[in-house]
Amino acid sequence: MSKRQVINIGLLGLGTVGSGTLQIIQNNHDEIYKKTGTQIRITKALVRDLSRARSVSHEGVELTTDPAAVLNDPDIDIIVEVMGGTTLAKDFITTALKNGKYVVTANKDLMAQHGVELLNIAKQCQRNIYYEASVGGGIPLIRPLKHCLAGNKIKSVMGIINGTTNYILTQMTNEAKDFAEALAEAQAKGFAEQDPSSDVEGKDAAFKLAILASLAFNSKVNIADIYTESITEISVRDIMYAEELGFVIKLLAIGEESNTGLSLRVHPTLVPKDHPLASVQNEFNALYVEGDAVGEVMFYGRGAGALPTGSAIVADIIEVVRNINHEIENGIIETTFPEKPIVPMKDRISRFYVRMKAKDEPGVFGSVATAFGEEQISLDMILQNRRDYNVAEIVLVTHDVSEERFYRALDKIEKLGSIRNLSNVMRVLERG
Amino acid sequence: MSKRQVINIGLLGLGTVGSGTLQIIQNNHDEIYKKTGTQIRITKALVRDLSRARSVSHEGVELTTDPAAVLNDPDIDIIVEVMGGTTLAKDFITTALKNGKYVVTANKDLMAQHGVELLNIAKQCQRNIYYEASVGGGIPLIRPLKHCLAGNKIKSVMGIINGTTNYILTQMTNEAKDFAEALAEAQAKGFAEQDPSSDVEGKDAAFKLAILASLAFNSKVNIADIYTESITEISVRDIMYAEELGFVIKLLAIGEESNTGLSLRVHPTLVPKDHPLASVQNEFNALYVEGDAVGEVMFYGRGAGALPTGSAIVADIIEVVRNINHEIENGIIETTFPEKPIVPMKDRISRFYVRMKAKDEPGVFGSVATAFGEEQISLDMILQNRRDYNVAEIVLVTHDVSEERFYRALDKIEKLGSIRNLSNVMRVLERG
Repeated sequence: MSKRQVINIGLLGLGTVGSGTLQIIQNNHDEIYKKTGTQIRITKALVRDLSRARSVSHEGVELTTDPAAVLNDPDIDIIVEVMGGTTLAKDFITTALKNGKYVVTANKDLMAQHGVELLNIAKQCQRNIYYEASVGGGIPLIRPLKHCLAGNKIKSVMGIINGTTNYILTQMTNEAKDFAEALAEAQAKGFAEQDPSSDVEGKDAAFKLAILASLAFNSKVNIADIYTESITEISVRDIMYAEELGFVIKLLAIGEESNTGLSLRVHPTLVPKDHPLASVQNEFNALYVEGDAVGEVMFYGRGAGALPTGSAIVADIIEVVRNINHEIENGIIETTFPEKPIVPMKDRISRFYVRMKAKDEPGVFGSVATAFGEEQISLDMILQNRRDYNVAEIVLVTHDVSEERFYRALDKIEKLGSIRNLSNVMRVLERG
Repeated sequence: MSKRQVINIGLLGLGTVGSGTLQIIQNNHDEIYKKTGTQIRITKALVRDLSRARSVSHEGVELTTDPAAVLNDPDIDIIVEVMGGTTLAKDFITTALKNGKYVVTANKDLMAQHGVELLNIAKQCQRNIYYEASVGGGIPLIRPLKHCLAGNKIKSVMGIINGTTNYILTQMTNEAKDFAEALAEAQAKGFAEQDPSSDVEGKDAAFKLAILASLAFNSKVNIADIYTESITEISVRDIMYAEELGFVIKLLAIGEESNTGLSLRVHPTLVPKDHPLASVQNEFNALYVEGDAVGEVMFYGRGAGALPTGSAIVADIIEVVRNINHEIENGIIETTFPEKPIVPMKDRISRFYVRMKAKDEPGVFGSVATAFGEEQISLDMILQNRRDYNVAEIVLVTHDVSEERFYRALDKIEKLGSIRNLSNVMRVLERG
């Protein structure tokens, strides 16, 4: 074994995450050297605009607008892709691998959509792609799933893996703000984009779930197989009722494996207050994993930001340095994924929360209960204690029922003359 | 690279954890094979009594009472030490390393007291020791500290790393049981030993902290440098007052690095209710880590038990298999530890909780406040709302103060004629 004195890194992109990575390598250079025995240096960075002012010192780093100057540099062993997007980034990573370089990326969209393809290219090139930073910022998630829990059959992963929506829901819960107000505040604080649709509609979480589920269940996962629901319909009334019933509302990304296949979904969920996920507040993320041996484990921390995400990238870089020093090309085998069957949403079983407005007259609740009863759905919790202008608000939580049967009952209920409207429907998580 | 078809393992010990390990390797053999490309087999197990009935099928495993039969077997590459104790285990591990075998151990006492010595022997033998299972059962802690957070300067680690005491404190908190009753229940449920002293006095947590702190701060840590306090003095009254002030009481193991050195301690602590550690209940464990890049992260799960601990051992075995297949002898460098200075307890700064009984007469509180004032200690919270038979109970929480100054003030207060007794004193954790 011949340990390398110096290993050079080329950055693709020098935005928030690229700057964070550079800053960590500058600040903690000595500690990293002690752990690896190798000097790690970022020597080049691909940028769009050479003249732009940078928030971090890039002394010693050659900035360039020419991708080939980084990708073809024979002195560079590791390419760190932090530019985002899927078209150019995919091309650049492919070129880097074919040029014999190792790749570290924070690109969740790319890994969720083209991960298996890129990992296969890496394998052909006897190189590897590391993507700890693509999910959950600095929280170790990929490495624990790949390595620490490698002896387990994973039964389920459940996560709060979108900080924007968790911030919004926390503000709605703790400060009784409505959705629009909480969103505006999240935007003002930089936790939400000006166009928040990818976050609030659950798409960002679905991309991350695709990556986590493929590792947890050793299956190729297609984004199209992930059912998603947005948080925009949640009102402060729902949050208040949930509280009364012993729950907090969270946007959960859930992957489960059963005998019939995988169930993959992102939707608002009533989480029991004493569940570890219930206390994950504001911009924090957490992933709750159940394995057949380990039982329940949870990983918690900051899911975004320059330094947290940079922390994950630097961990990946250090692993690559180890691999280069030991002349390993690949780690745990993760590209031999079959594609496991997907359980259709209609067969999913859970408890449901329903809030509806009804005429405040005798027999209304009876007709609702009868409709549920006809589908063999029994009720777990019932609240009917608020009335305005002759309209009663009924809130109930069912026992376990399949989506198909539940929605069939709900159709009937919606057609009852005494029901004004179904205000909201959400799924309820079992106690941890 | 020539991948090995089969790798054989020898177990030292076939008790709870050994059986759990065997069971996982039997149940998840195929998944592990898919991930590693190698068949993993436990071929021999050292036991004390060949005739004892076993809870797990050990077909294909040769049981022996002769250590040499396992340690000198040329077909065995990995020795898994799950026998406990420090004398024989240390000898056996040393022999195994000298025989060219990799070692996986769950032995916290051994690693806390002789870890650096054994890791150095491993290095000389171009082998390595893996000890994920020695702390926190199945929760990934060692690997995250060594690898996932390797780019960070760790500022602090704070953990609930003893399940027995957390179970007792949770029962005292949620069910208002007193210490003796909660301990008896923990013993009945198998969460506490018949002699619970190592757990309730904080020694078990101190051993685990020694292992975690040495990795977090890259320093050799001596058990004798860890300050410990027991939980036996905590009464339901303390828990009730803490609740009223917004805290829950937890036994925390804390390691911090500052400019002046390391501070290492295990003591009951008032934890703010909204801190992520506050919601860790019953036998669950959690480690809260603060890094300069990653910010706050927490790892949560079951800290003990056959299968959780087995899960950590199997993860270590899989890493060894990877290393054998890739002909790596060592991982991250962890034996070049200097011994960092220890900050004396008297210089530690924190808030303090004090509960005392005083004569219910005018001027008492004034004299207490004056004693604190003379040492420039200001008070953050005060409760004085319970009286029995002319005795007032005063509870207060100070602002930040050094241990030295705090205890000087407390000495004065104890001598005041109006103070009956100081019922309890505990440290208070800052908000997360």
